[in-house]
Amino acid sequence: MARSLEQVGQWWTILILRNVFLGHHRFSELEESLRIAPTTLTRRLRQMRHHQLLSKQGDHYELTDKGRDFLPVIMALVAWGNRWTPGGEAVVPVWAKSGRRVEPEVVDRLTGRALEPGLVAMASGPDASEQMKAILTPPRALGDRPAPRAETRCL
Amino acid sequence: MARSLEQVGQWWTILILRNVFLGHHRFSELEESLRIAPTTLTRRLRQMRHHQLLSKQGDHYELTDKGRDFLPVIMALVAWGNRWTPGGEAVVPVWAKSGRRVEPEVVDRLTGRALEPGLVAMASGPDASEQMKAILTPPRALGDRPAPRAETRCL
Repeated sequence: MARSLEQVGQWWTILILRNVFLGHHRFSELEESLRIAPTTLTRRLRQMRHHQLLSKQGDHYELTDKGRDFLPVIMALVAWGNRWTPGGEAVVPVWAKSGRRVEPEVVDRLTGRALEPGLVAMASGPDASEQMKAILTPPRALGDRPAPRAETRCL
Repeated sequence: MARSLEQVGQWWTILILRNVFLGHHRFSELEESLRIAPTTLTRRLRQMRHHQLLSKQGDHYELTDKGRDFLPVIMALVAWGNRWTPGGEAVVPVWAKSGRRVEPEVVDRLTGRALEPGLVAMASGPDASEQMKAILTPPRALGDRPAPRAETRCL
């Protein structure tokens, strides 16, 4: 988890990825659409190439397979933002062909069941550190509603 | 999108959310599990309360409905990390009851279809700025593979 974040690095990574997804491939297009200083953009693009999110072909930046695979995370983030951002919906995902609205939902691939708090847990994986194994054995349920605590009140 | 990011603020927001999901509710538990300075943690928790991701009840921090609703984004991020992180899988999502592995996938709620690059587009929403409307009319397809460019080679 921390390692996933490390690779994406900072929020600006997601903004750059989004703009490349939207079709900005040249340095000048990214600079204009993101409104950041060229030195900053150069540094960020270098980091993203280091993490193999983008590749550079001539003066074009292209998404790698790893970068393209980040799109579902962006979709889930946009959906959350639309549900909770005060000020409503600025951008909405649609199907490219039909223009019909898409409602991104995160489900289990096998069963199609939505991943809701209380239903899912985190377990240690095959490559977990000993510390991580200790923490996640048994697996920890995520976001169970807390049991009501006994309160002592002076009546 | 930028507004969604603004609300989550920084990567550390996701790390704190994750640890609250994992059951760390007290300040001392969060401090220990995140290994950050108490002044930093205090500032971050205050920001997260400001954005209504957490609420404070006595000495307990609880997820708000908005904070709990961020879990699917975290699941999508963990799945991406597991697919692409060198060094393998440290944590894996499982069903809380059965312990069976979950494969998070982002789909359209209505059709169940996976949201893949090339299939989805971004359209301007009802609350888009004029600038956003201009950019996203017509909707922009996300992550179409670039058309092969004609190359001039000297043979």
